[in-house]
Amino acid sequence: MVNNQAASPIQQQGLSTRQVALFNEPLVLESGRELTNITVAYETYGKLNDKANNVILVCHALTGDALAAGKDGNGTIGWWDDMIGPGKTFDTNIFFVVCANVLGGCQGTTGTASINPETNRPWGMSFPVITIKDMVKVQYKLMLQLGVKKIKIVAGGSMGGMQVLEWAVMYPELVENIIPIATSCRLSALGIAYNEVGRKAIMQDPDWQGGDYYPGLGPINGLSLARMIATITYKSDESFSLRFGRNLATPPKEIFDNNSCFEVESYLRYQGQKLTKRFDANSYLYLIKAMDFHDISRGVGTLEQALNRFQGKSLVVGINSDFLYPSFEQRQIVTMLHRLGKEVDYYEIDSPYGHDAFLIEFKQMEKGLGDFVKKCSVK
Amino acid sequence: MVNNQAASPIQQQGLSTRQVALFNEPLVLESGRELTNITVAYETYGKLNDKANNVILVCHALTGDALAAGKDGNGTIGWWDDMIGPGKTFDTNIFFVVCANVLGGCQGTTGTASINPETNRPWGMSFPVITIKDMVKVQYKLMLQLGVKKIKIVAGGSMGGMQVLEWAVMYPELVENIIPIATSCRLSALGIAYNEVGRKAIMQDPDWQGGDYYPGLGPINGLSLARMIATITYKSDESFSLRFGRNLATPPKEIFDNNSCFEVESYLRYQGQKLTKRFDANSYLYLIKAMDFHDISRGVGTLEQALNRFQGKSLVVGINSDFLYPSFEQRQIVTMLHRLGKEVDYYEIDSPYGHDAFLIEFKQMEKGLGDFVKKCSVK
Repeated sequence: MVNNQAASPIQQQGLSTRQVALFNEPLVLESGRELTNITVAYETYGKLNDKANNVILVCHALTGDALAAGKDGNGTIGWWDDMIGPGKTFDTNIFFVVCANVLGGCQGTTGTASINPETNRPWGMSFPVITIKDMVKVQYKLMLQLGVKKIKIVAGGSMGGMQVLEWAVMYPELVENIIPIATSCRLSALGIAYNEVGRKAIMQDPDWQGGDYYPGLGPINGLSLARMIATITYKSDESFSLRFGRNLATPPKEIFDNNSCFEVESYLRYQGQKLTKRFDANSYLYLIKAMDFHDISRGVGTLEQALNRFQGKSLVVGINSDFLYPSFEQRQIVTMLHRLGKEVDYYEIDSPYGHDAFLIEFKQMEKGLGDFVKKCSVK
Repeated sequence: MVNNQAASPIQQQGLSTRQVALFNEPLVLESGRELTNITVAYETYGKLNDKANNVILVCHALTGDALAAGKDGNGTIGWWDDMIGPGKTFDTNIFFVVCANVLGGCQGTTGTASINPETNRPWGMSFPVITIKDMVKVQYKLMLQLGVKKIKIVAGGSMGGMQVLEWAVMYPELVENIIPIATSCRLSALGIAYNEVGRKAIMQDPDWQGGDYYPGLGPINGLSLARMIATITYKSDESFSLRFGRNLATPPKEIFDNNSCFEVESYLRYQGQKLTKRFDANSYLYLIKAMDFHDISRGVGTLEQALNRFQGKSLVVGINSDFLYPSFEQRQIVTMLHRLGKEVDYYEIDSPYGHDAFLIEFKQMEKGLGDFVKKCSVK
């Protein structure tokens, strides 16, 4: 069943529609455990055509959510608002764009802060471990429920890109084209390492309480620190130098003080605190664990055997200053797809902004993605 | 006064001598605050010649100590043991090699865990803020006390390299040659950012208690996390991939478990815990703050004006996989020295090991440093 909620001001503008889908039947997770009564929060932009084949599915990154475009009631603008809309790269005059909050998330879809129907209390750390494949399975259910016959494009960056690749491997019959951005076929040891220190930051916070902190605020300091660490990895040496350099945030007279603070520190603290206002720490733990587990070859064979399942076209996008998902990882995907005889293009964003560039460099994104998307247009 | 302690087994082997120097007169720090009764722990290798001009001063990195070579009573081997000794790159048949634990350190030199003579209690966070310049001032006092007339070479990597550069700027009359390795003239915003998350990790640990935890163990979890984060920055994507890849440290049946652990995580935890057994958390806070403040131009003018004070020769060493102190930072030093008409060489270590390569790639270190050191030999 699809529940359309009351029209928001945005819906009245005709741009975004926050909706909720419910799946009562049990979902068997990759771990073998089952989840029932799954709620999925999603947004749509544009209209599904009669053939139900003009869909662009957009997959969000770690702390992203279903609000890919438009503005919500709090004035928050969608994370890919520059990409999605009438006349934009993902043209909503042509395409029906869908973005759903991932399984295990905390922005409307079932996750750690949801109520466990068996105990009537929040799941917390008793929530089953989930994987990127599980996230995609839930999105697949949503696609079927929406009556989608073909997904024209699945696109996303970072953890979103992991979902894009899994879509190509798991449901090649439904997906025509993919745009995986700043992502990899399986998370690197470096990626796992950074997730581990973020995990420790949260779990060492006494307010985490083994994850059983609801309805309290939970491990705010720990989550904030995890976000600070992650923020460093989303940026670059150059972007920090350009933006902050060695500027002090505190007055010069306090230079030789343990409390003196450089601008870059002040920025990181702000980013850390900001996330705690909108994100559940347990959810963060589950999503980074899902990223650690990310490996499209698991259960299939080799990476190439996994990619060989896909019959469509790919536009792989890398970022030259990304040190978390270095562009050689994307070029490896291109090499493999090419070797398998698939149609594949590669576009590299030239940016000082590091991993985050796919959320910043919209002119280049448009340039790099525009032609590919146009070619995908429904004839 | 120089106090020679009782001869250890190592001293009997004639290699290293752990000694302690005391400086009773007040030292005016860069902050304007004064420290009295400063103890400096140091080791020497080789013999000071009659002209007192065959000295190589070696400066240690953040968590290093005076034990640069040889073995201590616990079987710990010096961090540059491959570099220092009879017939080695820093040949103790020719040179008198000295390494002192830095001011603010916790391995014999006055620091946060030392007793504040005014309160008779450990300093903790009431210890005055120190800078790299302060560390070098203390080493200068030690050199005078040892009767050194000329320092043939000052060498060191990372925070040690910061001291090397300050030596050249602050005491050009005493220093003939420098070898700064994997370091910079002032810490980058990225470096400050990583220090900040390490700092937060320690200060958010409730066992830190505002730094007033002596004689307790202190913020073990926080210090361990700080070290885990730092360890990632000392390595590289490639070295982690080569060494750990995606290998699991726990048995495969536990893959889909929140407690499952990849080898790289297990390694980081081990490194974190190991440091807590030998390092004081407050000292860590003071030393990373000193690194944040590192800027050889402070009080002098521009970076070039600072470097122009130095009249000797430089061998600047970079590491191609170092992302914490990227090699362009070292090449900038070379460019500036060259522009100033100074004698300068550059050597780049080609290694997958990242920042830590100067503690690992000894064959290349020997190759890169050997000729330069030989040319510095006392005729």
